[in-house]
Amino acid sequence: MTAYDELMAFQRETEVLSQVAGRLGWDQETVMPRGAAEQRGEEMGVLEGLLHARRTDRRIGEWLAAAESEDEVAEANLRHIRRSYERTARVPARLASALAKTTSIAQGKWAAARAADDFAAFAPVLAEIVRLKREEADALADGGDLYDALLDDYEPGATAETLVAMFGALRPRLIALRDACLGAERQPARLDGTFPPDAQLMLAEKLAAAFGYDFDRGRIDRAVHPFSSGSGMDVRITTRTDPVDPFNCLYSTIHEVGHATYEQDIDDAYLFTPLGQGVSMGVHESQSRLYENQLGRSRAFTGWLHGQMAELFGDPGLDADAFFATVNRLHRGYIRTESDEVQYNLHVLLRFDLERQLIAGTLDPADLDEAWNARFEADFGYRPTRASEGCLQDVHWSVGLFGYFPTYTLGNVYAGCLHAALRRDLPDLDAALAEGEPRVATEWLRDRVQVHGGLYQPRELIQRAAGEAPTEAPLLDYLEAKFGAIYGL
Amino acid sequence: MTAYDELMAFQRETEVLSQVAGRLGWDQETVMPRGAAEQRGEEMGVLEGLLHARRTDRRIGEWLAAAESEDEVAEANLRHIRRSYERTARVPARLASALAKTTSIAQGKWAAARAADDFAAFAPVLAEIVRLKREEADALADGGDLYDALLDDYEPGATAETLVAMFGALRPRLIALRDACLGAERQPARLDGTFPPDAQLMLAEKLAAAFGYDFDRGRIDRAVHPFSSGSGMDVRITTRTDPVDPFNCLYSTIHEVGHATYEQDIDDAYLFTPLGQGVSMGVHESQSRLYENQLGRSRAFTGWLHGQMAELFGDPGLDADAFFATVNRLHRGYIRTESDEVQYNLHVLLRFDLERQLIAGTLDPADLDEAWNARFEADFGYRPTRASEGCLQDVHWSVGLFGYFPTYTLGNVYAGCLHAALRRDLPDLDAALAEGEPRVATEWLRDRVQVHGGLYQPRELIQRAAGEAPTEAPLLDYLEAKFGAIYGL
Repeated sequence: MTAYDELMAFQRETEVLSQVAGRLGWDQETVMPRGAAEQRGEEMGVLEGLLHARRTDRRIGEWLAAAESEDEVAEANLRHIRRSYERTARVPARLASALAKTTSIAQGKWAAARAADDFAAFAPVLAEIVRLKREEADALADGGDLYDALLDDYEPGATAETLVAMFGALRPRLIALRDACLGAERQPARLDGTFPPDAQLMLAEKLAAAFGYDFDRGRIDRAVHPFSSGSGMDVRITTRTDPVDPFNCLYSTIHEVGHATYEQDIDDAYLFTPLGQGVSMGVHESQSRLYENQLGRSRAFTGWLHGQMAELFGDPGLDADAFFATVNRLHRGYIRTESDEVQYNLHVLLRFDLERQLIAGTLDPADLDEAWNARFEADFGYRPTRASEGCLQDVHWSVGLFGYFPTYTLGNVYAGCLHAALRRDLPDLDAALAEGEPRVATEWLRDRVQVHGGLYQPRELIQRAAGEAPTEAPLLDYLEAKFGAIYGL
Repeated sequence: MTAYDELMAFQRETEVLSQVAGRLGWDQETVMPRGAAEQRGEEMGVLEGLLHARRTDRRIGEWLAAAESEDEVAEANLRHIRRSYERTARVPARLASALAKTTSIAQGKWAAARAADDFAAFAPVLAEIVRLKREEADALADGGDLYDALLDDYEPGATAETLVAMFGALRPRLIALRDACLGAERQPARLDGTFPPDAQLMLAEKLAAAFGYDFDRGRIDRAVHPFSSGSGMDVRITTRTDPVDPFNCLYSTIHEVGHATYEQDIDDAYLFTPLGQGVSMGVHESQSRLYENQLGRSRAFTGWLHGQMAELFGDPGLDADAFFATVNRLHRGYIRTESDEVQYNLHVLLRFDLERQLIAGTLDPADLDEAWNARFEADFGYRPTRASEGCLQDVHWSVGLFGYFPTYTLGNVYAGCLHAALRRDLPDLDAALAEGEPRVATEWLRDRVQVHGGLYQPRELIQRAAGEAPTEAPLLDYLEAKFGAIYGL
């Protein structure tokens, strides 16, 4: 066996253990008995310990030094393994353990503080997390930018500098578009009525199949939060239902199907190798958002959905054009996950700017609540009155996810680029969408993006698929055209 | 850290991985997407490989040599680990791998041969399995008896010699009892009607709770075969329904609850140690059979069940005495798993004798079909006409389980002893059973058997609980009294 073969054989077992940990995660959120939580926690702790030991095994360094790449695939495998090994090796065991312990405690404190709208109860543990994350960033950055070092975990190759420029171009045009929409004379109606959960789930399954989700290699269950889990031939999603808001179930299903088909569609040859998963959070989000928004919330597709819902739930009291407007309706609100396509990125930009300040040390975690509310008021024109609708609304920081938020907006930017390109390639797409058939678009994405798994770097992958370097322009053009038409701007 | 502490820390991770593999097994039989089978096979292969490497890790030998036991628990832990380590170390890697590969292929061949009633299609791979198992037994036996070496995997400390004596005393009295019952004038009625599956499942859940199954640390799902899976705080069972045979669902549920509560009731302190699971297959089966038969099929409990079923499914057309007889009705048949309480052990004894001959080399695997049918005719008075109702009915031999079958009957013998003892201790048990409350009996078992996990050797455990060395006499006395009354002998 060559050093490369030995390395890949070792890596394969690590990938399997990691898949298995993911499967236990699914189990925990869907079917696990309540009383098993403590035991499962111990099991996950041991699994994570085994994984950490494998990822820092010194033999990896020796194999990497001796391995030669014979082709593009081997080169990409070595790049992924080297990157992961070097990052893991830079973080002292003491720090990794302190982070695991602190964030584990912090999740409970965050949930309690959010329920009590009590930011002060969360501030001390947040300060501790920020301190540890800065220490981790310092270890990872090797003299470079602290925030970039964290960002690199979720979006390899991205830098805050590029994102600042990109997001700086987004913000004023998004605010202007939002103001124009909310101030327009023509306003979409709200959806009225109640929608039986079982019927919502039936329709959600139909939508999942229409978007190319392979039920032979996946399943849909109900859970508190929608998510996608697993790789290869076993990729499961969850959804939830709200009797008065069927779009929650339907569009979160399409969103998760975007994540799940990405995993299902990766070249089978990459299974249990570093190339066998979606390449970055940004690229993952580009698939889920494109499925959900550019395809699922298009005029053509909502026309078909309008007919499906009328059949299942009775006359919605709206014609297809009004239904399209309702699906895309902008509304005031504090919560990122409940936001609309125009305002969503404003929620993300706010978090991106605040977390950079926290990591840079220019914002004291004790002042986060005030800084959040001030920035929110500047961007949205009104001010959160409770921490649960302000800086305590998202779980991310309590689990140590700093550098994760911007990948949501980067994903939307990538989706904008891919959507513009696929529209050029598929002039008849709207006719297919109007028949409830988005497969021609999802297959375009499968062949140009999804099948490659981790073979190319994220930006390179998008550039190859879209035919040009990614910028925010296509997303903005698309949003202004779509919402200009809906609101008669 | 002492050598003992280091050993136990290492063992803990092995136990966790083994639990995780068990959880994946549950997933595979209940919720796994069909198309994930191949990927799951690879995952299980890697997990088994990691487990094998851990179980044969040379450091275990060093720790065992240096470890000192300070109390009964440490002594039992060392005994289990030493036994497992020595057994695993005796089997050459080449042989272990050949066995894994051959039995994996054999399962598919067995299923196809059974479906086609074609013993000749299965015979060659069976011969190969027998050859490999004899080689394994030879490696394990270290000069001792080959069959005992295999039996020891499932029932530590048991020997064929003891079992031959015990089973030899069972066989004539069981045959005589069976003949008397089937020849009696008074014959129980069959159950008539159809029983909606959802209502069967509702009642099964009620029965599970009544027998002490903790739903907070378990769950019931449907699967092709009923089974129990997991240890500690996450022990799940499955069941199945047959619209014309509700007893299949109800009594297989009670049976699996016997297995599952044994696991749930083990002292929490033993979790992730060698003491944290049921101590042997025989003791496990003693719990499941006692729950199912001595308690669940008693006159007192079936009286309560009679009322429950009348309420749920309408008038059964039988009074409580006739219903009790119907639940316990003897019938002609070829299939072990469909057999009744009297004839069940005759099915097991047949397998025990044949598999000892296969391992001794006195029966050519190619002649198994004929040997089976001849023995079946001698014990039952009629002859299987198809391999699927003969020697191809059970999966066990195709997966290499030789030495497993006798633990079913040993479990019944243990159940007989425990039942006699608990009846002495609990004179009012029938009054509780008549109210649908078997908890006083299952708690007796919990405190005397289940809580100990792997602390005592199987025979010692039964002797401690029952107050005397286990023999077949209490089982035979119980069966003759019960069925004598039902059939008016």
